[in-house]
Amino acid sequence: MSYFKEGEYALIRFEEKKFLKKLLKGHALNVRKEVLKFDEVIGKPYGARIGKFEVFKPDLEEIILLGFERKTQIIYPKDAFYIAFKLGIRKTDKVLEFGTGSGALCAVLSQLAGEVWTYESVEEFYKTALKNFRRFGLGANVCSHNEDFGKADVPEEFFDSAFVDVREPWHYLEKVYKSLKNGASVGFLLPTANQVIKLLESIGDMFGDVEVVEILQRHYKTISERFRPEDQMVAHTAYLIFGKKVRG
Amino acid sequence: MSYFKEGEYALIRFEEKKFLKKLLKGHALNVRKEVLKFDEVIGKPYGARIGKFEVFKPDLEEIILLGFERKTQIIYPKDAFYIAFKLGIRKTDKVLEFGTGSGALCAVLSQLAGEVWTYESVEEFYKTALKNFRRFGLGANVCSHNEDFGKADVPEEFFDSAFVDVREPWHYLEKVYKSLKNGASVGFLLPTANQVIKLLESIGDMFGDVEVVEILQRHYKTISERFRPEDQMVAHTAYLIFGKKVRG
Amino acid sequence: MSYFKEGEYALIRFEEKKFLKKLLKGHALNVRKEVLKFDEVIGKPYGARIGKFEVFKPDLEEIILLGFERKTQIIYPKDAFYIAFKLGIRKTDKVLEFGTGSGALCAVLSQLAGEVWTYESVEEFYKTALKNFRRFGLGANVCSHNEDFGKADVPEEFFDSAFVDVREPWHYLEKVYKSLKNGASVGFLLPTANQVIKLLESIGDMFGDVEVVEILQRHYKTISERFRPEDQMVAHTAYLIFGKKVRG
Amino acid sequence: MSYFKEGEYALIRFEEKKFLKKLLKGHALNVRKEVLKFDEVIGKPYGARIGKFEVFKPDLEEIILLGFERKTQIIYPKDAFYIAFKLGIRKTDKVLEFGTGSGALCAVLSQLAGEVWTYESVEEFYKTALKNFRRFGLGANVCSHNEDFGKADVPEEFFDSAFVDVREPWHYLEKVYKSLKNGASVGFLLPTANQVIKLLESIGDMFGDVEVVEILQRHYKTISERFRPEDQMVAHTAYLIFGKKVRG
Repeated sequence: MSYFKEGEYALIRFEEKKFLKKLLKGHALNVRKEVLKFDEVIGKPYGARIGKFEVFKPDLEEIILLGFERKTQIIYPKDAFYIAFKLGIRKTDKVLEFGTGSGALCAVLSQLAGEVWTYESVEEFYKTALKNFRRFGLGANVCSHNEDFGKADVPEEFFDSAFVDVREPWHYLEKVYKSLKNGASVGFLLPTANQVIKLLESIGDMFGDVEVVEILQRHYKTISERFRPEDQMVAHTAYLIFGKKVRG
Repeated sequence: MSYFKEGEYALIRFEEKKFLKKLLKGHALNVRKEVLKFDEVIGKPYGARIGKFEVFKPDLEEIILLGFERKTQIIYPKDAFYIAFKLGIRKTDKVLEFGTGSGALCAVLSQLAGEVWTYESVEEFYKTALKNFRRFGLGANVCSHNEDFGKADVPEEFFDSAFVDVREPWHYLEKVYKSLKNGASVGFLLPTANQVIKLLESIGDMFGDVEVVEILQRHYKTISERFRPEDQMVAHTAYLIFGKKVRG
Repeated sequence: MSYFKEGEYALIRFEEKKFLKKLLKGHALNVRKEVLKFDEVIGKPYGARIGKFEVFKPDLEEIILLGFERKTQIIYPKDAFYIAFKLGIRKTDKVLEFGTGSGALCAVLSQLAGEVWTYESVEEFYKTALKNFRRFGLGANVCSHNEDFGKADVPEEFFDSAFVDVREPWHYLEKVYKSLKNGASVGFLLPTANQVIKLLESIGDMFGDVEVVEILQRHYKTISERFRPEDQMVAHTAYLIFGKKVRG
Repeated sequence: MSYFKEGEYALIRFEEKKFLKKLLKGHALNVRKEVLKFDEVIGKPYGARIGKFEVFKPDLEEIILLGFERKTQIIYPKDAFYIAFKLGIRKTDKVLEFGTGSGALCAVLSQLAGEVWTYESVEEFYKTALKNFRRFGLGANVCSHNEDFGKADVPEEFFDSAFVDVREPWHYLEKVYKSLKNGASVGFLLPTANQVIKLLESIGDMFGDVEVVEILQRHYKTISERFRPEDQMVAHTAYLIFGKKVRG
């Protein structure tokens, strides 16, 4: 089971470059005049070194960053990983998410949760997320709805946690509140300080233990004789806001 | 099931302060002349607002930072969350970890994995981790060994991923390599640049797709009229190094 | 001239600790059971090593952080150094500043400028800044006013640049604008995102080339065998906003 | 004197774009189908708004980043500004620098110092720096040497501070030490952790009050309704190391 099969996605490293490729017979990857024939990869063990190439099973961060088709701004893995644990999800939990977007967070949540219910009103995004899941064998426990969460018929006191990724989350606070069990965690992702300020104005009555946090990721060059950070980094993706349902 | 029971741990917020307390009958929390009697909390729903207090089920970050007894430097949740996903752990995976330390990472890994085998040579640390797990109902799928990984009898080509948190990981590279399945992910946590440089010198033959990364967490004050970052932050915990087993 | 004189301030290092002390006869510094008698320092060259102590002339950052009396939140050297150059000050320039606060920025500006005019409405702050300047021999070219800039009689088209450090700078934009020469630079320091948003709403008509920037400073431990960042850092002091006077 | 003259450099803003251009008669700038004729700029006041363009005198950061010809990696203004003040330079000080590189730091040092002596062994770099100074009217008090500092005839106990920007500064420590007055400050700029570790191994005997620091600069978008950091930032330029000459 740790051998490459035809049709599987492979993470191919060539020096400092990374590629995510589907292993189709007769296909190949050309980099700087070197060729990796996929016929030679199929049947090889994960982690095979072939000439100057190394071929791996991709990790979840690599799948999302290199493999996901994006119709929206995706939630970065650095943020998604933090969110998934911060929501305190356990293996039997039911988690609510909207909007689905390209499905990056949903793919991460589904690894921790029992099931994820996700809502996306824009059909194009809904379909893209489904395609991303299918392509990489993710989201088996995801229940996708092509529906506006605000208008959807959602069960009450049902979810163990929720994550909200829409432009104006304050319109949905009451409905999210009702859908959650007592004390359940909720998270929000917002790119601008203006949005955070507006959310903080209204969140306090329904949710407590409120936190706002940014996650920054600093990569380093991996040459042992010249250890130093990369020249450039992602400076901002979004502010993450967390709270827990309170009862007066 | 979302009501506080006697003996359960509660996360108590009072204004900007946070406390993690065991709900024992007859006990209470005093903050700035306000009193929260735990008898009044027991039986209340999670997220109860009682006077100026709010009482929640703690999330995993709060449990680790406020509740774990530490005999060693713990792995911070910001790092542990990233590591757990970056290792690409799936629900049926067997994960190797050493040293266990205070058990913070182990608690996080166990939420994603099928089972975690963890090794710790120092008896005091081994016992502390077990105590931390028991206290917070964590680690049901963790197999703890009070044993030096270097001397332990470890199965070969057995683990789907591994995490190494010891001062001189280069001594263990070969043994870790053998214990892993083809292409399996390995992670390391090292506080100093000298250690990273030394690891990078020797890792390349056995592991590919090497990455070195730092995770930084910037908290914000949550008062909507004065939105701004906190004054102080944790500037450094450790460098995280990841690789995947290669075969020549 | 590079010998310590009585009454001079000295930066004293003892292992990783730093002290800023006035060298008075008969006085001494006690650290971890070691004693440095100031009588032995007076007359020694700058940079003298005396037992386990090292004694230096302090640099400007050390003077501000360790020596300045603070009645207000001070402007950190990391910010002050950036501001001073970003304003494009030349040796013959006239620079306007308000409010003076504890005088930290003013001390820095005065090193680059021909003269600095500074305004502070609160008498206590005004006096503290003057005391700080006198104590460390700074600010010879500073013209201090104990006066509200908004009410002061200020010359028009007179200053080459200006820096504004008050809570509600939008009230003063017009007056600052008038006081500046064509194209002159202006800077602002604001701790909260709400203030920056409010300033950005109104600044655009009068000032162009607007930039908002944060300066972060990450210190490292200096032990060569364990090179790594310090554990804690200052996460936030303020947002810096810069613009230049425009004419329609 | 605050009117644009022919041949002067202008910082031209067009929406979020910035250009540094020499104002030559008959020339123009085309951006997104809009044209700014330089004939219309000449004679206008600094800060003139002409159509959708705004035209300013550039600040020092803009001159270095947009205007300096680079044959080497330049020292970024964020670092140069910090260095210049951290060295504690006063208006009458003599400052030593090597290597000159493209002259970015030298241009900054010269604004604070009485005079700067700079050494550069590579003729091409030496000439580039001189060209950069001439072009922007900088460096009047700079004494440039096209000479290897290690071989140059340098006066002893002469400089008030020094800055070293070469790959292997440990070879020059003794000579720098001798050239400095008692207690004088020295700074170094090194891109990799390996270099810093090597420098820290040897610096301690000659220099005390050693600090290692990184300066990070986070820019924000300036649209008031969507206040947020820029997407990307410079993650690393170099580590800055400072010390002061000690005498045993």
